[in-house]
Amino acid sequence: MDLWFTEQHTKDVCFSIRVEKQIHSEQSKYQRIDVFESKEFGRFLTIDGKMMLTEKDEFIYHEMIVHVPMAVNPGVKNVLVIGGGDGGTIRELTRYGTIEKIDLVEVDKRVLEVSRAYFPEVSEKLSDKRISFYFEDGLRFIREKENEYDLIIVDSTDPFGPGEGLFTKEFYGSCCNALKENGILVNQQECPYYADYSKFMKRAHQCMQEFFPVCRIYQAQIPSYPSGNWVFGFASKGLNPVSDLRDSEWNKLGLKTRYYNTDVHVGSFAIPNYIRDILADTTEQQEF
Amino acid sequence: MDLWFTEQHTKDVCFSIRVEKQIHSEQSKYQRIDVFESKEFGRFLTIDGKMMLTEKDEFIYHEMIVHVPMAVNPGVKNVLVIGGGDGGTIRELTRYGTIEKIDLVEVDKRVLEVSRAYFPEVSEKLSDKRISFYFEDGLRFIREKENEYDLIIVDSTDPFGPGEGLFTKEFYGSCCNALKENGILVNQQECPYYADYSKFMKRAHQCMQEFFPVCRIYQAQIPSYPSGNWVFGFASKGLNPVSDLRDSEWNKLGLKTRYYNTDVHVGSFAIPNYIRDILADTTEQQEF
Repeated sequence: MDLWFTEQHTKDVCFSIRVEKQIHSEQSKYQRIDVFESKEFGRFLTIDGKMMLTEKDEFIYHEMIVHVPMAVNPGVKNVLVIGGGDGGTIRELTRYGTIEKIDLVEVDKRVLEVSRAYFPEVSEKLSDKRISFYFEDGLRFIREKENEYDLIIVDSTDPFGPGEGLFTKEFYGSCCNALKENGILVNQQECPYYADYSKFMKRAHQCMQEFFPVCRIYQAQIPSYPSGNWVFGFASKGLNPVSDLRDSEWNKLGLKTRYYNTDVHVGSFAIPNYIRDILADTTEQQEF
Repeated sequence: MDLWFTEQHTKDVCFSIRVEKQIHSEQSKYQRIDVFESKEFGRFLTIDGKMMLTEKDEFIYHEMIVHVPMAVNPGVKNVLVIGGGDGGTIRELTRYGTIEKIDLVEVDKRVLEVSRAYFPEVSEKLSDKRISFYFEDGLRFIREKENEYDLIIVDSTDPFGPGEGLFTKEFYGSCCNALKENGILVNQQECPYYADYSKFMKRAHQCMQEFFPVCRIYQAQIPSYPSGNWVFGFASKGLNPVSDLRDSEWNKLGLKTRYYNTDVHVGSFAIPNYIRDILADTTEQQEF
């Protein structure tokens, strides 16, 4: 038996994982959700045929989207997570006893239910008492919020389909209003190498720059994602992700992490020239 | 017409590139050499079916294997390159007017000839007058050298086949003898994520530690290589790759690079915990 899951990273590049078996498949109201079992990456979750997470390397994405902002502002109390129904971002957030309240806004409840059924180690903290669940559109949810959150994490799918509104100027403006003075916004910004993805990185970065005085990107190496290199955005009203890093404070917490450490934190903000050039190039600037 | 080149990154993971046409194929005395034309990666060179370089992302590998040591010791005059017959490492080295002499030891002359025929932008500096060519085995070549080089770059194929001897204790001991007091050894150490590759990273690191007081690894993100994340080793008799970085001196040279910059230099030495753990784990230590 020779069964392969293949994702087209571009129309001319494919990444394939040998599958032991498909263990779940459904068309939810919003998207197609599948779960597979594999030797190399363990169980993995795809949405509309695109890799969302694998048991083997999900720690990289989830640690980097959470611990980077938390090590810059350990005083975070109120958090908004948009997307992230699988629970991985929640799992990392709940390790901070200082966080008081987490609003999780996930448009598709079935992502949570599927993660609970098949990824117990990813979803285990979705039962944490500090979480309030909102199964609705993130763009609409955030419109009414003002000066409410210390941290917003946009843990979205790719900006094709339901995640599209989370890559618009309106959305980042609303995030800015919803954040307090010391607020930080972190989002996933796709892959910087292939042009089909990097155009979204560039668009997100340009939109965020309109609202936030501090606007940077940082990288993490995630083997199951296109090109293996992924970019996150970090925006704030003042806190600098490198010079305001509270490294000794974070290290004193004694959190055991498998990817993140405070050296990696600083290193992840060192951006290769070709990626800097994409972000600096304004020739394709347009209204979003 | 639907033609794909596929490389098995592990027995359960494949990476495929759509090919316009195969433009060269031969079995040399040592290995099978192929050249393909593709839209996404431009022309690319494979050896024994493994990706060696693509026109689109070769700059990442070649800049990182050369500029990292050169920015730590700008006084480098005599260089030994083992492998690297394609000429990409040479191209970056020849940008330094201060380098006086480069010995290129490539076991397979056909790699040079194929690169000259099909990759003019990679091989263009193979005509530089400072280069002496030695078409022989690197392991044997270096045995007789003592206190001769400021920098040794091991730009080898994977440690299966002809490249195997370059991952042994004997080889690193010879490198140590061949280097001067301020000498630096840099080598490619495979991918840290998949176990089939990271065992070679670990082996190389352990061997190098036996001879060199300073022994570090650094990373670069190369989309056409397994997992997209690649590791280089940096070993020296005293120079530290981070605290001895001569960043302002290097920046004054005004070299235009597409990946490397002195921030990336420092950042590339920030190693995620799971990779640190692989290197620290001594349970599988053995004689090489």
